[in-house]
Amino acid sequence: MDLAKVVGSITSVSKLEQLKPVKLFVVHILGSDFGPTGNYGVAVDTVGVGYGDIVLITTGSAAKMTEITKEIPTDTSIVARVDNAGDRQ
Amino acid sequence: MDLAKVVGSITSVSKLEQLKPVKLFVVHILGSDFGPTGNYGVAVDTVGVGYGDIVLITTGSAAKMTEITKEIPTDTSIVARVDNAGDRQ
Amino acid sequence: MDLAKVVGSITSVSKLEQLKPVKLFVVHILGSDFGPTGNYGVAVDTVGVGYGDIVLITTGSAAKMTEITKEIPTDTSIVARVDNAGDRQ
Amino acid sequence: MDLAKVVGSITSVSKLEQLKPVKLFVVHILGSDFGPTGNYGVAVDTVGVGYGDIVLITTGSAAKMTEITKEIPTDTSIVARVDNAGDRQ
Amino acid sequence: MDLAKVVGSITSVSKLEQLKPVKLFVVHILGSDFGPTGNYGVAVDTVGVGYGDIVLITTGSAAKMTEITKEIPTDTSIVARVDNAGDRQ
Repeated sequence: MDLAKVVGSITSVSKLEQLKPVKLFVVHILGSDFGPTGNYGVAVDTVGVGYGDIVLITTGSAAKMTEITKEIPTDTSIVARVDNAGDRQ
Repeated sequence: MDLAKVVGSITSVSKLEQLKPVKLFVVHILGSDFGPTGNYGVAVDTVGVGYGDIVLITTGSAAKMTEITKEIPTDTSIVARVDNAGDRQ
Repeated sequence: MDLAKVVGSITSVSKLEQLKPVKLFVVHILGSDFGPTGNYGVAVDTVGVGYGDIVLITTGSAAKMTEITKEIPTDTSIVARVDNAGDRQ
Repeated sequence: MDLAKVVGSITSVSKLEQLKPVKLFVVHILGSDFGPTGNYGVAVDTVGVGYGDIVLITTGSAAKMTEITKEIPTDTSIVARVDNAGDRQ
Repeated sequence: MDLAKVVGSITSVSKLEQLKPVKLFVVHILGSDFGPTGNYGVAVDTVGVGYGDIVLITTGSAAKMTEITKEIPTDTSIVARVDNAGDRQ
């Protein structure tokens, strides 16, 4: 899983029916100490996040292991809002 | 998932029977603010897109979670045409 | 699988119910001779590790093949604490 | 999926029984306009290709979705020979 | 799949029960002409290899498609020892 920052949303008129019920966010993948990596992705929200939130994203088949995403063709889902990443060495 | 731009198509005479019914596009993966990453892929279209469109692609087992791709050996599918990616920070 | 060093933990109030029973660690992926790669991830602990430990992480669907993680939407799990990586050439 | 060029083959005496019936090729992953990326992989052939051919490869669980590879522990399969990748922008 | 060189082994006292029966090797991923890429991983051996051997590794769900690894939470398995990678262009 990766830490990421919510930096945008997606508007789409032509999309799969399966994607219509979910909210899609553009996320910036973070590295150590919440530093930016320059890598971006698009994730389905499963916890109710907003712009600027630091979140935890999961990828691959795990992205579909939630009530919200089990029928959604997503490879990346937001599964937590991160309040603190403490005690780093 | 990733944002990508449709930049080409693929012509192939010798291919798996399973791939024959679908349309394959070359896509350029985009980063923040629709900037190019220099990374490319080939994706199956599930929504009806065209050259120059900005699209949303999904990868891995999720790429096969659509009516069109469920029997297709694809690892990347186009699942939406993106009209806007707004409110970025 | 990859060698990694446990460098932090995650605190989160808003998260999926499925993630609540598990402990999440920030890990720094290591390369040859335990050297840092600059790449980080977040992993579910399945063996009981602590800060500074060198661990083995597994990714993808394999991350869910443990008693602790089988219902958890994780793409990365800690599956061993590494005591030595010997006889390198 | 990715475009790739067939650049070599693999000879192996000690291998899994499951791999014995298939032909393994070393492929060079291509980027835009068939340019080299410097990244290589090894793929199972499912369509009958030869040295120098430009091919389409699929990865992950999709690599096992063909008659030839369904029992093969491969993460990369060649699923088409590409004759042209046209109309690029 | 990737070519790799066996460069080390892993010693671990605290690990998942599932991992105890298998032998874990540190492998250096190779590129064209067996050149080093600087990328490393840890793989389960399924064919009986030793230090310095050039091997073929498979990743993801394919890593679990062998008799030895079917219950093992591994994302990378060694599936062949490579004797030659010939006729490269």
